[in-house]
Amino acid sequence: MDANGERKVTISAIAKEAGVSVPTVSRVVNGRSDVAPSTRRRVEELLRQHDYRRRATRSRNKARLVDLVFNDLDSPWSVEIIRGVEEVAHTAGVGTVVSAIHRKSEPIRQWQQNLRTRASDGVILVNSTLDSSAQEELRRLNVPLVVVDPAGGLSFDVPAIGATNWAGGLSAMEHLLGLGHRRIGIVSGPRAMMCSRARLDGYRAGLESTGLTIDDELLWEGDFYHASGFAGAQAFLRLPERPTAILASSDQMAIGAYEAVRQAGLRVPDDVSIVGFDDLPEVRWASPPLTTVRQPLAEMGAVAVRTVLRLAAGEPLDSPRLELATTLIPRESTAPPRQN
Amino acid sequence: MDANGERKVTISAIAKEAGVSVPTVSRVVNGRSDVAPSTRRRVEELLRQHDYRRRATRSRNKARLVDLVFNDLDSPWSVEIIRGVEEVAHTAGVGTVVSAIHRKSEPIRQWQQNLRTRASDGVILVNSTLDSSAQEELRRLNVPLVVVDPAGGLSFDVPAIGATNWAGGLSAMEHLLGLGHRRIGIVSGPRAMMCSRARLDGYRAGLESTGLTIDDELLWEGDFYHASGFAGAQAFLRLPERPTAILASSDQMAIGAYEAVRQAGLRVPDDVSIVGFDDLPEVRWASPPLTTVRQPLAEMGAVAVRTVLRLAAGEPLDSPRLELATTLIPRESTAPPRQN
Repeated sequence: MDANGERKVTISAIAKEAGVSVPTVSRVVNGRSDVAPSTRRRVEELLRQHDYRRRATRSRNKARLVDLVFNDLDSPWSVEIIRGVEEVAHTAGVGTVVSAIHRKSEPIRQWQQNLRTRASDGVILVNSTLDSSAQEELRRLNVPLVVVDPAGGLSFDVPAIGATNWAGGLSAMEHLLGLGHRRIGIVSGPRAMMCSRARLDGYRAGLESTGLTIDDELLWEGDFYHASGFAGAQAFLRLPERPTAILASSDQMAIGAYEAVRQAGLRVPDDVSIVGFDDLPEVRWASPPLTTVRQPLAEMGAVAVRTVLRLAAGEPLDSPRLELATTLIPRESTAPPRQN
Repeated sequence: MDANGERKVTISAIAKEAGVSVPTVSRVVNGRSDVAPSTRRRVEELLRQHDYRRRATRSRNKARLVDLVFNDLDSPWSVEIIRGVEEVAHTAGVGTVVSAIHRKSEPIRQWQQNLRTRASDGVILVNSTLDSSAQEELRRLNVPLVVVDPAGGLSFDVPAIGATNWAGGLSAMEHLLGLGHRRIGIVSGPRAMMCSRARLDGYRAGLESTGLTIDDELLWEGDFYHASGFAGAQAFLRLPERPTAILASSDQMAIGAYEAVRQAGLRVPDDVSIVGFDDLPEVRWASPPLTTVRQPLAEMGAVAVRTVLRLAAGEPLDSPRLELATTLIPRESTAPPRQN
């Protein structure tokens, strides 16, 4: 029995049951490739049945690395997370291994292979998901997993760090409604992502609390990138009765909306007010500086790495899910609607 | 003698000379902390004298990691480099460890300590420098070093990957001069950095080839960040005879200049043309889209990691220094000067 009261199975017991040598089982446990596929399957099945974990070895022999895994490294958004993770990890004497898996099976498989050959003390997944077999492998290797801004679909036993997206959407609406706007369009993120749905529901809650109904013409589903904010704003500006304000669910979509306003010969905020979401460092340098909902990305990264290092050290968590506060940052892209 | 014709010193010979045990020398070589400081100093001195290298061990036992070291992770610029490095490293089965050293001794010391405990197949330094003792330690650990966009000051035996900064500055000037501009201000990067000096010299070369002389009023030294582009442009726009165009040595400074133009009640490019440098993905979404000199940041990262992996494998390099081509990308922030 180990410290947690679990019966420990040894490698030699597994080897005996599988009818193979001890070094063969070791090779499977260590993810080496020089094992026949059929043997690997048989040994892996037995390791699973006996819930074999490499705990003892790993606690003596830390990798001093955490894995930070993105779908894509194509946004200033990601550098904010990296900065938050790196700062805490660096000070803790741990390296931050950054990877992009592009939502595709080949880079994911390659990343898993890389992880097996060099080991890791913990994995932080940003806005992405792993299928259940990949999650199971991490569990078997005893590598803890933490998710930042979960896209949905991960099992509830994975600790998650997010932001108060619903409250953030609502605070943006309270700001615009307070300025006197009544016709407000929203360019949301992908509806499949939980953070997008929460922001959209904050938008709805703001309208409803003012007794306004939702106008489907004023809903546009974007993908968080500039071009979709541009397209959404362009569609809104062509409506017979155009909105006086646009809430974009990301800063990048807000900046895309700026360009649609400029191309329509209009001005921000004189003709259209725009609110973003994220507060990337560069949006205080947009012309005019962007009013936005600050999402504490670096802090989310910092909390995620502290969480994964606590799990790696076998320490308990205060809470399996944490949402850090969002804050409205008023700048110059919002003003009362023009009186017609 | 090893393959390079060098006489190899063994750990046991070092141990004998230092009057300590073989495991003690091993602990020093492996950067472990459980060695008395005076013993460590004596052993390190002997390792240096005999030019001891861990070559044999390391080639059998790759870390499957490269270190990518920035001064700061505070710019969309860095994510472009990370993306280029990660893509090549990932496919090669190598993890990318990202660190920020903030030009300060404590994070550098901590990073060196981290490197010793977990090993690395190579180090890519971005725009930063290591002092000679840090460089020497990497040499002793046989960890190859490559520099991206060298800031100057590194010894010439370190391979370096840069961009054609001088040609880039000149191409921006040819574009502006071709549109008819004659009074052109430049917000340069820090003069202490080689890349800044090369871009500034490209600016000078453009003026001189058109028979124009340099006007000191039109030179402003920035730091690559938004605020300095804003300040430089603001100073230019207050001149009795203001420039009709501004060349900014980074995209972020160009975007800062946009805001100075807006605050002066003027428009880009109607009143002032602006050219940036870098071609960060977001500047095609500036309002108006920014004309800029593309610096192939992701490709520079890709070449850097290929270089460091070749060195780690003991393969020769085609060239110790490489400059990748810059390209002018004309967009909507430049136009002929207004006729007064």
